[in-house]
Amino acid sequence: MKLYDYPGAPNPRRVKIFLAEKGVDVEIVRCDLRKGEHKTPEFLKKNPSGKIPVLELDDSRTISESVAICRYIEAIHPEPNLFGADPYELGYIESRNRQIELELWTQISTSWVNGPVVGRMGRVEQIPEAKAASDRNVNRYYERLDKEFEENEFVAGKRFSVADITLLSGVDFASELVGLRPDDGLSNLWRWHEQVSARPSAKA
Amino acid sequence: MKLYDYPGAPNPRRVKIFLAEKGVDVEIVRCDLRKGEHKTPEFLKKNPSGKIPVLELDDSRTISESVAICRYIEAIHPEPNLFGADPYELGYIESRNRQIELELWTQISTSWVNGPVVGRMGRVEQIPEAKAASDRNVNRYYERLDKEFEENEFVAGKRFSVADITLLSGVDFASELVGLRPDDGLSNLWRWHEQVSARPSAKA
Repeated sequence: MKLYDYPGAPNPRRVKIFLAEKGVDVEIVRCDLRKGEHKTPEFLKKNPSGKIPVLELDDSRTISESVAICRYIEAIHPEPNLFGADPYELGYIESRNRQIELELWTQISTSWVNGPVVGRMGRVEQIPEAKAASDRNVNRYYERLDKEFEENEFVAGKRFSVADITLLSGVDFASELVGLRPDDGLSNLWRWHEQVSARPSAKA
Repeated sequence: MKLYDYPGAPNPRRVKIFLAEKGVDVEIVRCDLRKGEHKTPEFLKKNPSGKIPVLELDDSRTISESVAICRYIEAIHPEPNLFGADPYELGYIESRNRQIELELWTQISTSWVNGPVVGRMGRVEQIPEAKAASDRNVNRYYERLDKEFEENEFVAGKRFSVADITLLSGVDFASELVGLRPDDGLSNLWRWHEQVSARPSAKA
């Protein structure tokens, strides 16, 4: 299997952390986003959405979208379980993962797309009001997470799951590239961050 | 099981179509969004995100997020299969479902939040530039779908899946409440729409 990746891109990192947790090796293929290699006709055959990560199987079928790739990996390498081991847990981990994606990641993305780094590339018409609103939403969500981590060790309760990978990649991307680092006072969130960052997979 | 629902809300409809496809009955509980019943302290205990749908189990545990609820239902009622029957299909249907959510639904939501109906409620600071951009993105995505339906009978290829439910609910909501009805010329998209709307589950 090959994984199309670009260093520093947060969505491929989600898959790489997931693979590391599973102990699965894949060939990494660099898709240079700065050169627009994700928008070439050849790449669009692999993923019509023109995005990475993409997983290419040995028979050349492809799967795009990080969580879809992770779900395929979970199906072929069930252990350690990261998506849920019984019906309720399958639903609950999915719900936590989606809350992080839909309420935090979408806002981080809006701030990124309307922020200075993307602005300098000059490819997108930016909306400063949208960034102001999403910056506020991100910081509000960090506060919610901080309260949740007062009671919960991990995003979905007592054990590490795909939802922790989603949050870790989002927070690190927001902190390092979007200028949205959680406030130092959010000690429960930082406790969680230190704990999951200490796992060997987090180096991915 | 109880499902917290509000007539006309597109996300609860996704779950209701899914349940109808599975032939599973649940008690429907009305959560009046206009009266803000989804933001009361009591409801926030069921879903801290303050959103519907929420599924409440007989032991009073809850699951929120439509796809998470559907995944729980799939686990307890596996047939007919709607999420994928082998590892590749599990990944592929997830990827198609996510593309519809992340590239179409998010844009429909932006147009809704910044559009006239929500504007009249006066609860949100609106950004007209954001609506103009998301309106364009929705129409562009409809064109992409129309091309895809030239080859594919359903969203994820040859068979009906959860991804069709996601698209149907999105297109109907956009058409009826957001003013974003697909152009009449998109005949492949309308062929698909007619076909899935004819299923008994679509009445949900």
